[in-house]
Amino acid sequence: MHTLEINTRQRCELVEITADVQAVLDLNKVQDGIIFLMVPHTTAGLTVNENADPAVKKDILRKMQDMIPVNDGYIHAEGNSDSHVKQSLFGCEMFFMVEKGKLVLGTWQGIFFCEFDGPRKRKIHIKITG
Amino acid sequence: MHTLEINTRQRCELVEITADVQAVLDLNKVQDGIIFLMVPHTTAGLTVNENADPAVKKDILRKMQDMIPVNDGYIHAEGNSDSHVKQSLFGCEMFFMVEKGKLVLGTWQGIFFCEFDGPRKRKIHIKITG
Amino acid sequence: MHTLEINTRQRCELVEITADVQAVLDLNKVQDGIIFLMVPHTTAGLTVNENADPAVKKDILRKMQDMIPVNDGYIHAEGNSDSHVKQSLFGCEMFFMVEKGKLVLGTWQGIFFCEFDGPRKRKIHIKITG
Repeated sequence: MHTLEINTRQRCELVEITADVQAVLDLNKVQDGIIFLMVPHTTAGLTVNENADPAVKKDILRKMQDMIPVNDGYIHAEGNSDSHVKQSLFGCEMFFMVEKGKLVLGTWQGIFFCEFDGPRKRKIHIKITG
Repeated sequence: MHTLEINTRQRCELVEITADVQAVLDLNKVQDGIIFLMVPHTTAGLTVNENADPAVKKDILRKMQDMIPVNDGYIHAEGNSDSHVKQSLFGCEMFFMVEKGKLVLGTWQGIFFCEFDGPRKRKIHIKITG
Repeated sequence: MHTLEINTRQRCELVEITADVQAVLDLNKVQDGIIFLMVPHTTAGLTVNENADPAVKKDILRKMQDMIPVNDGYIHAEGNSDSHVKQSLFGCEMFFMVEKGKLVLGTWQGIFFCEFDGPRKRKIHIKITG
């Protein structure tokens, strides 16, 4: 198992990690298999979405903020229940296919770490089966 | 890796692909393992839900449209930010268990390709490990 | 494949199953691999979230109820379309990494079965690859 570490800079932020994940794959030398990613946190997630126009990230985050605002009558005393709800909706794990040593992604797809309660130091666990 | 191709017909549509996925499994002859599905797009997804009463599909799509309407102050110029948000919430990949050469699904479960910005020609990548 | 059975007690409820999943892993004796979980229902799901403060579970369920109420003009006659929508948003499957025979989870993470249309007798299928 490998562990990536990233430092997020905003409370809510989508950080592209596609190149970091490919770099782990390059070290591992698996040519044909599945790569599994898992975020060991409860206020962050993973998603795949467009990495061409940065406006897409902004729209996703703004819409999530509208649907699930920070203050909304929550009882959990830490003030980040919205972040926990977002983690459950986005999910905290993803897998990707590996062919010829490369991540299989569509033309416009990037892999994003989803920070919902930053800024924080965060981890992403990676395991590859071939 | 196998790739299914489908043509969607509506802007938002749930297309059942259970039989298509089972057909790929039949060709592959794996009896015991895991089958991985991945949509290489950024405005579409995958889900499992009821395939008995077609009203369930309609209710899911109508509710998503209410929660995440097409026009909602988005800045991405292509006019499909709602579709990107829906992809992140539904997810673009799923795995299924394989036992005795068959997909393991519950009585009422079907696998659906989720079109959120059609009609388009779409792909679904499939990889099986046994 | 193993199958866990649980009895839920509320219409909407998050039931922690972390220890039950670890118990299946202990029986299987896989030291290094991936464990796959799948719920064979259409009105239930799986999630990972905080298992320390029970208020987090309550906030997640209350927010889901606000966003996706039971009565909301649905056409499906069984009166549980909200439950079907919640299944598609949460997802009905998750995988976890296994290292030294243990589930890889973050400090605050627990695995929860998500009941969205209980109380019912429910199943969770588990398959481990090593």
